[in-house]
Amino acid sequence: MEILEQLYEGKAKKVFKTADADVYMVQYKDDATAFNGAKKGSISDKGIVNNKMSNQIMQQLEKAGIPTHYIEQLSDRETLVKRVEIVPLEVIVRNVTAGSFAKRFGVEEGLQLKNPTLEFCYKNDDLDDPMINNYQITALELATEQELATIADLAFKVNAELIKIFAAVNIRLVDFKIEFGRLDDGTIILADEISPDTCRLWDKDTNEKLDKDRFRRDLGGEVEAYQEVARRLSL
Amino acid sequence: MEILEQLYEGKAKKVFKTADADVYMVQYKDDATAFNGAKKGSISDKGIVNNKMSNQIMQQLEKAGIPTHYIEQLSDRETLVKRVEIVPLEVIVRNVTAGSFAKRFGVEEGLQLKNPTLEFCYKNDDLDDPMINNYQITALELATEQELATIADLAFKVNAELIKIFAAVNIRLVDFKIEFGRLDDGTIILADEISPDTCRLWDKDTNEKLDKDRFRRDLGGEVEAYQEVARRLSL
Repeated sequence: MEILEQLYEGKAKKVFKTADADVYMVQYKDDATAFNGAKKGSISDKGIVNNKMSNQIMQQLEKAGIPTHYIEQLSDRETLVKRVEIVPLEVIVRNVTAGSFAKRFGVEEGLQLKNPTLEFCYKNDDLDDPMINNYQITALELATEQELATIADLAFKVNAELIKIFAAVNIRLVDFKIEFGRLDDGTIILADEISPDTCRLWDKDTNEKLDKDRFRRDLGGEVEAYQEVARRLSL
Repeated sequence: MEILEQLYEGKAKKVFKTADADVYMVQYKDDATAFNGAKKGSISDKGIVNNKMSNQIMQQLEKAGIPTHYIEQLSDRETLVKRVEIVPLEVIVRNVTAGSFAKRFGVEEGLQLKNPTLEFCYKNDDLDDPMINNYQITALELATEQELATIADLAFKVNAELIKIFAAVNIRLVDFKIEFGRLDDGTIILADEISPDTCRLWDKDTNEKLDKDRFRRDLGGEVEAYQEVARRLSL
């Protein structure tokens, strides 16, 4: 597949066109940002871990009946994916209280939630990605009611699969952020990535954080944490 | 009905016990606050307008099949209401963009929404009343799924009735905040108040604001605005 010009550079990835108009190439960087870009740094070989992990998990999700954008891994950092129009929502599923949830609602971190929660944030850096609900999303025409029902259904299915995948390597899935895209025919599929950048992953025995919170919170050991996840998942 | 000790003093009302354990008395004050209490002032005779307006509207809503806490007006500022346990949610319905909605989502004020929106905020001054969704509400056990379905249904019915009531006096209902309570048997009923403190009301022809935004935004003429609403509703 011939790789053409760069289309977009995000905080952690670059996206390129290819000779096939329906296929993009994603290239994972080591750059790390937090707090809507206010904190910047880099985590050595993060791009390799995130690329391999995301691809492995997307293939497992496909087997479980969840459609994803994954096509083929090209190299340590590069992967072919289906071209989609991204739905401008961060889709966050939580099993355990942490991060903005704990802060927003004044509860401590680490509490098992009575039910998994789903929340949508409107992807808009200028507005600081505000939380948004279904009525607001349809009123602003960001997605249709039917698309939101599909996204909610898929998000909870992804959660159930991820819990199993991580439990098998002694990791507790605290929460995660995913994104969805529309194919030309309107089909909603899982896009973006699933990695320690986008999941909170705690060791089941020690509650040690094996994710980007090590970087966000200046805990140190972020390179080792990403490598430990890679090791456990046999990437 | 014998009035007993004061139970609670809020920003705009005092609540008293009565000889009947199932009945409270509400007394409306002229005190006005905004921005979670950061701005303080007073609007002359606001308490009288809000008391009469809320009572008149609650009676109209009852006729439309919406259960409310209203029992009987005692005086210009005092009303007997059913004792409820307040569900700790601000229930906000919007027809037109304004206020926090416009700011949060980066849209201009005054746009008719494609569909009315419903949003819940967790009543907690320390947390600045954060927006909260159904999954989060049930996970934190603030209300049950069934209660939320009832509240959503009633909130949209209240909206439909209020639009009619205000349209009849040439007022555009932009948005409003209501609260609900639980009776001892668990029945959900409309509680709190419906007034220019809790509704955005714009003159249909001129878009002149006839509500608390005159105070919030230092527009002046707040006393006259409340009186104008009272005059139009023949309070």
